[in-house]
Amino acid sequence: MTSVDRTPGASRSVTAKVLALLEAFTPDTPEMTLSELARRSGVSLPTAHRRVAELLEWGALEHAPGGRYRIGLRLWEVGSLAPRGLGLREAAMPFLEDLYEFTRENVQLAVREGTEVVFVERIAGRRAVPVWTRVGGRFALHATGVGLVLLAHAPVEVQQELLDAPLDRYSPKTITDPAALREKLASIRQSGFAVSDGQVTVDALSVAAPVLGQDGSVVAAVSLVVRAEGAQSAMLRPVVQSAARAITRALHTPAPTPIISHRIPS
Amino acid sequence: MTSVDRTPGASRSVTAKVLALLEAFTPDTPEMTLSELARRSGVSLPTAHRRVAELLEWGALEHAPGGRYRIGLRLWEVGSLAPRGLGLREAAMPFLEDLYEFTRENVQLAVREGTEVVFVERIAGRRAVPVWTRVGGRFALHATGVGLVLLAHAPVEVQQELLDAPLDRYSPKTITDPAALREKLASIRQSGFAVSDGQVTVDALSVAAPVLGQDGSVVAAVSLVVRAEGAQSAMLRPVVQSAARAITRALHTPAPTPIISHRIPS
Repeated sequence: MTSVDRTPGASRSVTAKVLALLEAFTPDTPEMTLSELARRSGVSLPTAHRRVAELLEWGALEHAPGGRYRIGLRLWEVGSLAPRGLGLREAAMPFLEDLYEFTRENVQLAVREGTEVVFVERIAGRRAVPVWTRVGGRFALHATGVGLVLLAHAPVEVQQELLDAPLDRYSPKTITDPAALREKLASIRQSGFAVSDGQVTVDALSVAAPVLGQDGSVVAAVSLVVRAEGAQSAMLRPVVQSAARAITRALHTPAPTPIISHRIPS
Repeated sequence: MTSVDRTPGASRSVTAKVLALLEAFTPDTPEMTLSELARRSGVSLPTAHRRVAELLEWGALEHAPGGRYRIGLRLWEVGSLAPRGLGLREAAMPFLEDLYEFTRENVQLAVREGTEVVFVERIAGRRAVPVWTRVGGRFALHATGVGLVLLAHAPVEVQQELLDAPLDRYSPKTITDPAALREKLASIRQSGFAVSDGQVTVDALSVAAPVLGQDGSVVAAVSLVVRAEGAQSAMLRPVVQSAARAITRALHTPAPTPIISHRIPS
């Protein structure tokens, strides 16, 4: 990921400053005052004041209680046009629903961004095994089922970058030895699915399979995450693989239903 | 909605130009070449070239096939922090799943933006009655169930603005008479739910109920959309109202599960 130079004195373009202001918002800091926003984005207070006014007018930011600011619905609307975000989700949703009905546990759809996995969709019953994911959230590639699938099919240089750095441990079962991870990735490529058994949290088991783009490359991964105790991955595998194949097909066929936005002036 | 001045000669700030470039992407034109993008945003070609390079570097835009550009995953990620977008959705999802299991038809969650409804979530079975909605898409307030609920509880000036303009007709049953619509809105406020029976498409019936924010104001609406033929709105009403109340409660309680993004450096 390219990151913006946060040195306050650095000469940055107006575009870079606007993007730095937006980037300052995170799941941990979804609302900020103007001075917090200026500090976190490395933009001077007067500049932040001017840019925030423009972002508010357009709807990229909104007023929050206590004189704070938050990301606005308009930015979410524009962001929803990202084909790897809601576009992918729309094509996948009916099949994710089918997967959910099979276990009433957790269903996840994710894509790779650099050396991380980004969760595009998550369906979970209220009694499902707890998992630490949030739609729009990120996680390391080498621990989750979807991450392992995406890593197994990532370009060699991405795999190398990840294997050259220390591998974080999330549970006693996380694979942190590069040679063992390489072996695991080879077996995922050969079998067409991944099992992450307690490698994120010891109580959860994930079975994941790849979704292919038009050119046959892996563009996303789908998984079922269930309680590790008593889980039968051999039973889960065919339903996850069928769902992944159905989503692959859906991505290659134009949507049959007209969408509302076509009918009203934008 | 405030719209950006699209006159090519107009003096616009850099921020306004950047936002105009992002705004040029719509569900109808999700991918564009640089010259299309410049034309649709009213930005000169050299300026568009410079700004697009910066937006690409940050990930707000991505390369698409054929030398075109599209909205990038990074913008979707930042947009997902909008509390009225995915934040609302996360709190509501388990209860939307419950609603879906009741009918296997369509479940919708929406908010009001100006005089339009914006769909934040949609769950639909593969055999559900077709509806013209897309997550992130917009529609007129006066036809759909969720729209009627949001309009009934909108500020008086929003209602007035909408009632003063001609009301679009979507089906023979759409209410386009301002006096009849006023009466309908009063009855929705009194009863606590809305029924839209064939007012968008004749074959669909929607039952909707309001979701309340911390201060007791209506912040969203939830609906079940089923086949109009044989639909029993009296049976659907209690489940939709229960779901709306459960989402209202969930919005006022902090999420119990830690989210992944807290555990990794951003």
